[in-house]
Amino acid sequence: MRLADTPLLTDLYQLTMMQAYHDQGMEETAVFEFFARSLPPHRNFLVAAGLEQALGFLESLRFDSEELEWLNATGRFRQSFLDRLERLRFTGDVHAMPEGTVFFPNEPILRVTAPLPEAQLVESRLINLLHFSTLVASKAARCVLAAPGRQLVDFGMRRAHGAEAGLLAARSAYLAGFAGTATVAAGWQFGIPLYGTMAHSFVEAHDHESDAFDRFIHSNPRAGIFIIDTYDTEAAARKVIDLAKRLQGEGIAVRGVRLDSGDISTHARAVRALLDKAGLDEVKIFSSGNMDEYALRDLMAAGTPVDGFGVGTKLDTSDDAPYLDCAYKLQEYAGKPRRKRSEGKATLPGRKQVYRWHDTDGLMHRDLVTVEDDVQDGSPLVHRYMAAGRRTGPQPDLDQTRRHCALALARLPGALRTLEPAEPYPVAIAESLHRLAAQADELVD
Amino acid sequence: MRLADTPLLTDLYQLTMMQAYHDQGMEETAVFEFFARSLPPHRNFLVAAGLEQALGFLESLRFDSEELEWLNATGRFRQSFLDRLERLRFTGDVHAMPEGTVFFPNEPILRVTAPLPEAQLVESRLINLLHFSTLVASKAARCVLAAPGRQLVDFGMRRAHGAEAGLLAARSAYLAGFAGTATVAAGWQFGIPLYGTMAHSFVEAHDHESDAFDRFIHSNPRAGIFIIDTYDTEAAARKVIDLAKRLQGEGIAVRGVRLDSGDISTHARAVRALLDKAGLDEVKIFSSGNMDEYALRDLMAAGTPVDGFGVGTKLDTSDDAPYLDCAYKLQEYAGKPRRKRSEGKATLPGRKQVYRWHDTDGLMHRDLVTVEDDVQDGSPLVHRYMAAGRRTGPQPDLDQTRRHCALALARLPGALRTLEPAEPYPVAIAESLHRLAAQADELVD
Repeated sequence: MRLADTPLLTDLYQLTMMQAYHDQGMEETAVFEFFARSLPPHRNFLVAAGLEQALGFLESLRFDSEELEWLNATGRFRQSFLDRLERLRFTGDVHAMPEGTVFFPNEPILRVTAPLPEAQLVESRLINLLHFSTLVASKAARCVLAAPGRQLVDFGMRRAHGAEAGLLAARSAYLAGFAGTATVAAGWQFGIPLYGTMAHSFVEAHDHESDAFDRFIHSNPRAGIFIIDTYDTEAAARKVIDLAKRLQGEGIAVRGVRLDSGDISTHARAVRALLDKAGLDEVKIFSSGNMDEYALRDLMAAGTPVDGFGVGTKLDTSDDAPYLDCAYKLQEYAGKPRRKRSEGKATLPGRKQVYRWHDTDGLMHRDLVTVEDDVQDGSPLVHRYMAAGRRTGPQPDLDQTRRHCALALARLPGALRTLEPAEPYPVAIAESLHRLAAQADELVD
Repeated sequence: MRLADTPLLTDLYQLTMMQAYHDQGMEETAVFEFFARSLPPHRNFLVAAGLEQALGFLESLRFDSEELEWLNATGRFRQSFLDRLERLRFTGDVHAMPEGTVFFPNEPILRVTAPLPEAQLVESRLINLLHFSTLVASKAARCVLAAPGRQLVDFGMRRAHGAEAGLLAARSAYLAGFAGTATVAAGWQFGIPLYGTMAHSFVEAHDHESDAFDRFIHSNPRAGIFIIDTYDTEAAARKVIDLAKRLQGEGIAVRGVRLDSGDISTHARAVRALLDKAGLDEVKIFSSGNMDEYALRDLMAAGTPVDGFGVGTKLDTSDDAPYLDCAYKLQEYAGKPRRKRSEGKATLPGRKQVYRWHDTDGLMHRDLVTVEDDVQDGSPLVHRYMAAGRRTGPQPDLDQTRRHCALALARLPGALRTLEPAEPYPVAIAESLHRLAAQADELVD
């Protein structure tokens, strides 16, 4: 069975609605857009991510025979509809903001223009992919802003929500400026740099902590980072110093030590002093354990001598904002604008473009959301990535995307860069969009 | 590339530590246990889940040639070690609490007894599987307790953290007492009952809401549940009533309506009154939108006439407790007890058993965590599931597990059943365990 790339990774109602579209021949062009309705309380901006996965999903969309047989066995679907599913491919266009773009509520980061059944079916998985990648990229960007100049590494896979979450979190974190990840499969799949230290269990499996350090570095001479808090942090630091001196004759360098518990600021100062006194100022201090942007900010503010951080659970689960209020909504069908007016959840119809203006220092100044053909003199953020089911030319690789994100973060206004809630960034809705909404409301009952 | 079942879904340090174990011939028996260190603030108990996935992962553990070639290309590993990885299989034993068991901090729900390198490698993915399934089962159990007699359906895949999270959340929710899920792939993979209604986009794609309802039910005559809040809830309810009356002549029954926005309690009462007045008391009302155990409790307390609920994002992300403070820790190596003493994170060594006593009403009374051979007269909760890498006999299927969980929830003391923080359930640590910890501390430096 396919896990992540099966079209059965959808909601049942997508298939029952498609069966009705099929019966009615409702295959005209639909336009859906994906956007956030609001920011979580602890976010001043979001970072778009997941487009690469979304495009890959659309390109490879097809039902295989095992899946069709199973659908048939449910007794919910007629043969003529299942025959249609067998032939189904994604034939539409995709417009999107590039990954790594900073965005705000009501700004679409992805638009699907396709025959209604295709655009409907893919809703659940497109949200699933874009939502999570964006969630973690947005959290990771805050960590990057909170610890300038420090090496940040994703340690979160073990408490990420399943396999794909671990992989996509590593990717989103790297995209947003992390140095890399501990997750081997993310190195394999995405080419992300891998980092690792050692676990407490390695120390515990030895009778003597010093033997554990000695054996580890002889087996991994380029990866000599030791965990030193298993029993007594400063005592372990002294063992590392003794070892480092002995290794100098062998031409092996100790790269660092890791602190994972207790008061990091106090331990880091004590260990730094011990290392420096021994002339080991090139040995780095890494820290992990309950890290997030708030802990990073506080450790930085205290001048804690830590060179790098492992950020794990709270990054991969985006614990202070574990989901975004986001949606993939029908904006147009068969040439007519569409929207829902549900209480508290009304949407704006039509195909949209987002324009951004920067100030004379190059910092972001304001955005405008408008209908696609209402051309403005700002920078348009939404571009075409797929036409008739095929990608339009080469896509940026992950390192290009990472540079795009770094530039976007460098252009954030000062107020948005802090971890505290800021005045909302100005995003205006064009009059042309409001007019279109009024038109849409007249078309239906 | 394999996504979820590759052994590369691990942390880099597992492989570098294994290389050192390999060099030293450290392949003696290690015992690791998985447990929670503490409860999140909003949980009075946890529900064990994910064992089936954990056993499947261990059974199928092997590196394929593509993975080994990639590891070789990283330049981090020597050929003799890669040759060892090629032959590596999981050959150990697994003891565990059955899925659906209620448990508490410091009670191991899984124990791995295996040669050290095997037990070390699997740490990251075992935590990844057990943590998330347990997280969602524990949240789902609270929803089930908050809405007795109501039909609960998992709607959360779209905002779950990736594909596997959506699938495993559906499974955990069903295990804990949900009626089913909207996620088609979870029906396919786990045999979970599927439920679905219709989306706003289906209504919006039609010029007339009443046409949308009419067409949907004629294409899906057994799935007639209509979303009625796209434009005006009560007006849509009247359209459903007109349709239901017309359909009576065709022998097609409207099954229900769904409310997804606004004040659910007010709308549900108004819609129930309209339906009842029209003699349609068999038409059910379903509700969705921002549901969780707190919303369910409040709607139930208000006597809201809702027959079933779609619970989505907040369930699949466990938003009020998006992770558990849990760990997989070395407890014994080569016959000697082991533990770490890190500040605030010290663990108890040894192979453990958990005993539970019930009161005369059959309700849970107290637990004791002790060393395995310290036999007690309570009910032991930890049982053997795998020996020498093979499952020991047939495993319970998901419906048996679901019944086991229902029984466990029925035996919860009253205080633990509420959503408010309760006095902690009494879990004692046996004196024999404390003695073993003292022994362990004497063995290392």
